[in-house]
Amino acid sequence: MKYIVIFLFASIVSSAQITKEQLNIMPWPQNITLSEGSFLLTKNFKVNITGAPNERIFQGATNFLRRLDGRTGQFIQQGFITALNEVPNAQLQINCVRAGKIDLYEDESYMLDITANKITINATTDVGALHALETLLQLVQNNNNSFYFPVSKISDFPRFTWRGLMIDGARHFMPIDVIKRNLDGMAAVKMNVFHWHLVDDQGWRIEMKKHPKLIQMASDGNYYTQEEIKSVVKYASDRGILVVPELDVPGHGSAILTAYPEIGSKVVNLNLNTGEKGQQFTQVLSYSVERNAGIFTPTLDPSNPKTYQLLNEFLDEICPLFPGKYFHIGGDENEGKDWDSNPKIQEFKKKHQLANNHELQTYFTMQLIPMLKKHGKVLMGWEEIMTKNMSKDAIIHSWKGANEGKPAGKSLVDAAKGGYKTVLSNGYYIDLVLGVEEHYTVDPMPKNSSLTDEEKRRILGGEATMWSELVSPETIDSRIWPRTAAIAERFWSNENVTDIKSMRKRLNVISFRLEELGLTHLKNKERLLRNISNNQKSDALLDLSNVCEPLKGYTRNKGGTEYQMYSPLTLFADVCTPDASDAVGFNEAVTNYLNSKTNENQIAVANYLNKWVRMDKDLLVLSNNAPLVQPLLPLSKSLSDLSEQLLLKISNKQGLDDSSLYGLLEKCNSKDYADVELAVYNSLRKLVQAKL
Amino acid sequence: MKYIVIFLFASIVSSAQITKEQLNIMPWPQNITLSEGSFLLTKNFKVNITGAPNERIFQGATNFLRRLDGRTGQFIQQGFITALNEVPNAQLQINCVRAGKIDLYEDESYMLDITANKITINATTDVGALHALETLLQLVQNNNNSFYFPVSKISDFPRFTWRGLMIDGARHFMPIDVIKRNLDGMAAVKMNVFHWHLVDDQGWRIEMKKHPKLIQMASDGNYYTQEEIKSVVKYASDRGILVVPELDVPGHGSAILTAYPEIGSKVVNLNLNTGEKGQQFTQVLSYSVERNAGIFTPTLDPSNPKTYQLLNEFLDEICPLFPGKYFHIGGDENEGKDWDSNPKIQEFKKKHQLANNHELQTYFTMQLIPMLKKHGKVLMGWEEIMTKNMSKDAIIHSWKGANEGKPAGKSLVDAAKGGYKTVLSNGYYIDLVLGVEEHYTVDPMPKNSSLTDEEKRRILGGEATMWSELVSPETIDSRIWPRTAAIAERFWSNENVTDIKSMRKRLNVISFRLEELGLTHLKNKERLLRNISNNQKSDALLDLSNVCEPLKGYTRNKGGTEYQMYSPLTLFADVCTPDASDAVGFNEAVTNYLNSKTNENQIAVANYLNKWVRMDKDLLVLSNNAPLVQPLLPLSKSLSDLSEQLLLKISNKQGLDDSSLYGLLEKCNSKDYADVELAVYNSLRKLVQAKL
Repeated sequence: MKYIVIFLFASIVSSAQITKEQLNIMPWPQNITLSEGSFLLTKNFKVNITGAPNERIFQGATNFLRRLDGRTGQFIQQGFITALNEVPNAQLQINCVRAGKIDLYEDESYMLDITANKITINATTDVGALHALETLLQLVQNNNNSFYFPVSKISDFPRFTWRGLMIDGARHFMPIDVIKRNLDGMAAVKMNVFHWHLVDDQGWRIEMKKHPKLIQMASDGNYYTQEEIKSVVKYASDRGILVVPELDVPGHGSAILTAYPEIGSKVVNLNLNTGEKGQQFTQVLSYSVERNAGIFTPTLDPSNPKTYQLLNEFLDEICPLFPGKYFHIGGDENEGKDWDSNPKIQEFKKKHQLANNHELQTYFTMQLIPMLKKHGKVLMGWEEIMTKNMSKDAIIHSWKGANEGKPAGKSLVDAAKGGYKTVLSNGYYIDLVLGVEEHYTVDPMPKNSSLTDEEKRRILGGEATMWSELVSPETIDSRIWPRTAAIAERFWSNENVTDIKSMRKRLNVISFRLEELGLTHLKNKERLLRNISNNQKSDALLDLSNVCEPLKGYTRNKGGTEYQMYSPLTLFADVCTPDASDAVGFNEAVTNYLNSKTNENQIAVANYLNKWVRMDKDLLVLSNNAPLVQPLLPLSKSLSDLSEQLLLKISNKQGLDDSSLYGLLEKCNSKDYADVELAVYNSLRKLVQAKL
Repeated sequence: MKYIVIFLFASIVSSAQITKEQLNIMPWPQNITLSEGSFLLTKNFKVNITGAPNERIFQGATNFLRRLDGRTGQFIQQGFITALNEVPNAQLQINCVRAGKIDLYEDESYMLDITANKITINATTDVGALHALETLLQLVQNNNNSFYFPVSKISDFPRFTWRGLMIDGARHFMPIDVIKRNLDGMAAVKMNVFHWHLVDDQGWRIEMKKHPKLIQMASDGNYYTQEEIKSVVKYASDRGILVVPELDVPGHGSAILTAYPEIGSKVVNLNLNTGEKGQQFTQVLSYSVERNAGIFTPTLDPSNPKTYQLLNEFLDEICPLFPGKYFHIGGDENEGKDWDSNPKIQEFKKKHQLANNHELQTYFTMQLIPMLKKHGKVLMGWEEIMTKNMSKDAIIHSWKGANEGKPAGKSLVDAAKGGYKTVLSNGYYIDLVLGVEEHYTVDPMPKNSSLTDEEKRRILGGEATMWSELVSPETIDSRIWPRTAAIAERFWSNENVTDIKSMRKRLNVISFRLEELGLTHLKNKERLLRNISNNQKSDALLDLSNVCEPLKGYTRNKGGTEYQMYSPLTLFADVCTPDASDAVGFNEAVTNYLNSKTNENQIAVANYLNKWVRMDKDLLVLSNNAPLVQPLLPLSKSLSDLSEQLLLKISNKQGLDDSSLYGLLEKCNSKDYADVELAVYNSLRKLVQAKL
């Protein structure tokens, strides 16, 4: 049956005119018109470049060819593109007016014109042309024996100038190849800002030639060499992406203070009556790299001149590695506990007439502005830096929301009204492992706000944040992708592009296509399942993973201490992802069935329920030789038990009484097993509650 | 039925004493004794290190812990090991007498003693201790709910001191992460020499600060920076692996001569009557980076002093990057065509009384010896360098065999007898995509030879060679692994360890375990199949891939010109591997059935045949929306057609006449489709020929 459906669909594709709804472009372009006909891809396909672009377009067009032939198996004859106007008669003509700058507000627009025998890309800059090539790759269609592009015209440009992704390389170190493949992913969905969180309590990750103690004492040997950083900046620049480094101060300071305890705020109490004085002194002055997740007290001492001297030296070494104009200094989650209990710091506050810790932090942050300005850089920080005396040159990164007891995005509006440029991340915390819809429906531009046009222009865009407390290099891609592609659409496309069903359909295809960039979100799931099953062949474990999602928010790592930074992230919860595929499918099936109790709709629901009964039996067998399967059995059994009852219910056969049925249902709502939850719970409840 | 078997097996594991046959160690240790009982793995497991090792053991033991907890899901509490004797009461005690050197002939032995509550590793060097940790990881057992080590004693050491893998980073550039994950794979099977082929006709891959033209003109931007090379050498050294770089001269010279045409041997003929003289001059002097595979004429000019001056300068820059004692200068496949046609070179030969091109090449090679000696390095070269005047200090790399019209390994014996140290690669050319048995049955020590003990000692060991004409970073792992693990066993274990069935059984488990190192041989197959199927779900394509193997030898790339170095390697032939899994299984089933025509044996055969009939139907449906499936259909149909007939035959039903049956069989022997062959052909023929 499944195959027949595919067959019919394929026939339609190969014979009929394609419609916009069939295209899987993401982000959706600003303007697109389709016409009849198609451009057939053959091995004679060649690219020619004209105009005055930056030479990154040569490598970009070469990469485009390799992705195109890798995907289609065509032996495209053109090898490396290294100069302008190499093949004047090429079928694909790219013309750029000038070299693009890797900066905000650059012209990233493009026009893409596909006719039956010629494709033309016109763009002001090579950055725009690179976007056009990504669109073109998303336009590849096929019938049963060939690949083609639909005749069409696209004119496209971004809605926001800041379309960012942050990766935290501090909590779990993320090697260069992880960063680079994610830059490829970003470019594929037209994102243009890579925010690199490089320092936190759990590690200092930047090679420092003049202050080697930072890597010797606070990196566990896991750091980016300066050459590696430069190679990432180049790799990003080649893809039109700006790199914004982050050195998080004055809080999140455990790593820095492990190397330089003398600039910490912790009180050195020499008046204690217990212990030998020398011992006490050493003990109080020591910090260590943090192994847990959470908010910790180690904080730089804003009253100590050495703090500024060292930070100045650090910045003198770090800034030249990053040619971009923006530098993120963190500034978040400083609770000031060590400030409050340090008499010297209290004295400093009085002397400088700083009413509270906020003003003290402002004092601290203001000292960094000239250090950065010297290198031509603008300071950016998390919203905590926005206090009354903060320079209007600073960019405010809005991140707090309901989780932190604040109205979502309030600081964004406050910043815009207060004269600050600002970027929104609240709503885009992809490490919360929420469903894609939760992020897709958040817009960087607040609705119904009373912002003036000028204030609106201060909202630069948005940024997805991938904190790495609970991801390893092996799993991080599956937390970033595919959801970040939908977020990228929010940042690029027209605000009216909001259809969830269309987004989900396109996202499935984009997710598959992202694999060709080396992203591991799909294939590492298979590898981790092999380990959990102890290399036994079975679909049961996969079936369970397709209805389970990791515990949401930060509830998986209870108290931040269950998982140390070296704890295994190869577990079932690491395999599961938001938007569990069968949960999405089952929800549709249940909705359809409850709307219309046709035989077909009933079968669709029963197929899922039967699958889960079978799954539980198979898992039990599997578990006999797979210890890692044991913790999953209770959840699987709950689902199976309820499925059996629901099968009886939908066939109008006698099952358990209502109270027992609800008892089974609540077992399916458990969060006690294997750090996952059943994503089908809501749909199951609908079935339990339904009068059939 | 399958599950019941698993269940019984698991029960046995959990209750009965484990036997040697159940262990999946590879390479098999020299001595192992098993006793009753087991050591249970818990989160309290800790490691302590004593003695006087190199500090690489700290990182090695930390990596061991992470692999152990990643695999078992245990939240092992020990984080980073950074010093001696950190946990004196730890359950795993590692004692090393002294720091190991990364060199040949180092003591790599170890003793591993597992009792019910303590594990002890004793080794002369940390390198031996690293091997012990790999053995320990291979010893992990499980029952239904826990992981344990069997009580046992192992004493182990290598048979050969050179257990090498060569990776060709020149034909297809292999980025650093490819190299590093393969070094992890090597360490896991106790290999100790990484031979890095860095220069060939298709590219120069070493960053050269004093001669930047080499990378600017002859690398297409794909090269290893000097820092990357150093990081690879360090990474290898941390795993007990010596790196031997190769700069292939005087043949295979297209890349070098693209940058420095003035040291090429090609004739500059100014006396031609056609063409404009100036044009002619320029044209003759130019070389270009080669895009095809094969043996090419560009060769360095041995009569030109500038050749030696440049090589000396190259070596002065390259040698310090590699602290190891050995340097491979290639020396293979120089046909001397350009030498023969160059009057200046002919004159030079006469002047220096060099009778032929062999002697001329010897002259050339001898000039390199002092250049290398200056850096403390010994010259190694492919067997062509072994001519009568070659220094006895050179190491001879034996590679020719039947393919090259020579008796296999003849040069190895000649070298040993001639006073040269020597390494065998003939028989270990894994790029030929032959079955593992072909390599496993080749021993570096020739049987029935008349070598004296002293001569035998000159045979240092063997080396698997992974040439990269037809592999990409995405597919190379699947050409190296798992077969190289069996080759590693040949180099390490006792010569009597030759049981094929045992090797195959263990290799399957080792292959699965190698995934935890990031090797992609299993998971990239799934990703490439997704692309070929156009993301349609179906087992049919996987089923076909499990009976097909890529065309063997160098027959896939006809004439070396069908695939350019930038042609797609994402095709069905790239997905298929030697030792196709269902071909191995089917062969067993057919053998069993023909030996004993029980109902059970017949069902086993019929299951395969039915699967292939179903597969063909499903593939046909799949192909409606997947152009890359089209080329596979003829082969699938041939297999299906014959399977249908064989199903009739084994159930004693009337099918086609013999002649038609043989016709169908021969269609299954085709090599005309999709660059693959059906690996089940021989078993199918047995069934066709059998009198039932």
